[in-house]
Amino acid sequence: MAEAPKPNSASKNDQSLTLEKVRQALISQEDTIVFRLIERAAFPLNSPTYHHKISSSPSVFNFIVKSTEALQSQAGRYEIPEELPFFPENLPPSLLPPPADPPVLHPAAASINLNKKILDIYLKQLLPLFAVPGDDGNYAATASSDLDCLQAISRRIHYGYYVAEVKFRDAPQDYEPAIRAQDREGLMKLLTFTNVEEQVKKRVEKKAVIFGQEVSLDNNTNSVKQNGTVNGKYKVDPSLVSRLYGEWVMPLTKDVQVEYLLRRLD
Amino acid sequence: MAEAPKPNSASKNDQSLTLEKVRQALISQEDTIVFRLIERAAFPLNSPTYHHKISSSPSVFNFIVKSTEALQSQAGRYEIPEELPFFPENLPPSLLPPPADPPVLHPAAASINLNKKILDIYLKQLLPLFAVPGDDGNYAATASSDLDCLQAISRRIHYGYYVAEVKFRDAPQDYEPAIRAQDREGLMKLLTFTNVEEQVKKRVEKKAVIFGQEVSLDNNTNSVKQNGTVNGKYKVDPSLVSRLYGEWVMPLTKDVQVEYLLRRLD
Repeated sequence: MAEAPKPNSASKNDQSLTLEKVRQALISQEDTIVFRLIERAAFPLNSPTYHHKISSSPSVFNFIVKSTEALQSQAGRYEIPEELPFFPENLPPSLLPPPADPPVLHPAAASINLNKKILDIYLKQLLPLFAVPGDDGNYAATASSDLDCLQAISRRIHYGYYVAEVKFRDAPQDYEPAIRAQDREGLMKLLTFTNVEEQVKKRVEKKAVIFGQEVSLDNNTNSVKQNGTVNGKYKVDPSLVSRLYGEWVMPLTKDVQVEYLLRRLD
Repeated sequence: MAEAPKPNSASKNDQSLTLEKVRQALISQEDTIVFRLIERAAFPLNSPTYHHKISSSPSVFNFIVKSTEALQSQAGRYEIPEELPFFPENLPPSLLPPPADPPVLHPAAASINLNKKILDIYLKQLLPLFAVPGDDGNYAATASSDLDCLQAISRRIHYGYYVAEVKFRDAPQDYEPAIRAQDREGLMKLLTFTNVEEQVKKRVEKKAVIFGQEVSLDNNTNSVKQNGTVNGKYKVDPSLVSRLYGEWVMPLTKDVQVEYLLRRLD
């Protein structure tokens, strides 16, 4: 099977795993996250989605997420390392043949899944900040839109496997002492670049400005002013997207990296 | 239940159905369609998605779409008039109570479903035009991304119900003679505004330019030049999005409107 260098996809063989490719994938995933938050924000909160019982599930959300994951699992979604289920219990196995390519990652990746935390943050902290009050009755589409957001955020965070792997391969001597000492804090320091993180926060804010504007034929596009403030009305608050990255996405990606590296020499 | 005036949602009661609201919903749905095409284009074609058998399904695509629709149907998705399944046969019924609001549309809407045609156009004409060759093995996510595109396009086209209803209510005297005469051609003429359609085509092209650009902190945003040509590299060809609207989305929306109006006095 031929492989095209697509930004959303994992690098599937050793030769193709480079820091630049991983970086491009992360940047492209920012667009996906912003798109999906904008789409979710087009629905009101629709709170019955989260407490209306359906079948044996405690909520429409739970029903949609669990059953969608079950069928996507059968179609092989979770054979891709950075695709992780939110309800991994009793997930049916893939009905497709396993991927032909040799694994790129250390097997440790398979034991790191932060989705429980991601789900909790999404439902309790993020959603109330960006979904406006209201109820339009479209609970199935709302839950499915939530799953889209969750999957995009989870994929971005667990892409930390590749970030860690490529950094380790590029300079094993930098990481090995901290790994041998099982020094979590030391690893976290090695993986933290405050100015890069500030840039990412600014870039995702700019993306929320550009992708969340009302485009019409005669207007000028919205823009981030020199002083950092933004013009216009947006479908998702750009500062919230920046905060999502600063408080949750980037710290959790580093947690994935640390956990991965701690087991990298096993 | 309170209702927020959200652009993606159907107007649920008579008072709230206005041409302006319907127009806003259609404009907002353009963003959704462009976002989802960009997301699908982040995967290569992944042709095994469409011919690799799985379980009793002829393809991963078929399996994902059919089973996702089954569970979304149980969660009440298809109780919303503009949400229509691609595989309506043997769909399990909703497990939720029916919507409390009185219907806005004439019952005729329920008998108009162009999804077979939409699916055929999407798979045979549209997808080969915007998905680049290649195979990254992520068939489940690809099929699920296809379903996202299909649902957005289908919702936009079947929103024609509301367009027709609001136009009819605003000027029944204009439509009744053609409806009584069951004059398809006459209705199509009443519903065709070439200059508006040209504007829509230009606007969706501009959206593909703006939403499909590579955003970085130092670049200027891409723009549509005065002469209509576009600068830069895009994730989905803007002229293709314009063509999608001109050749398929708008004609099919008018077909929905004509079919609806033909039965509006039944």
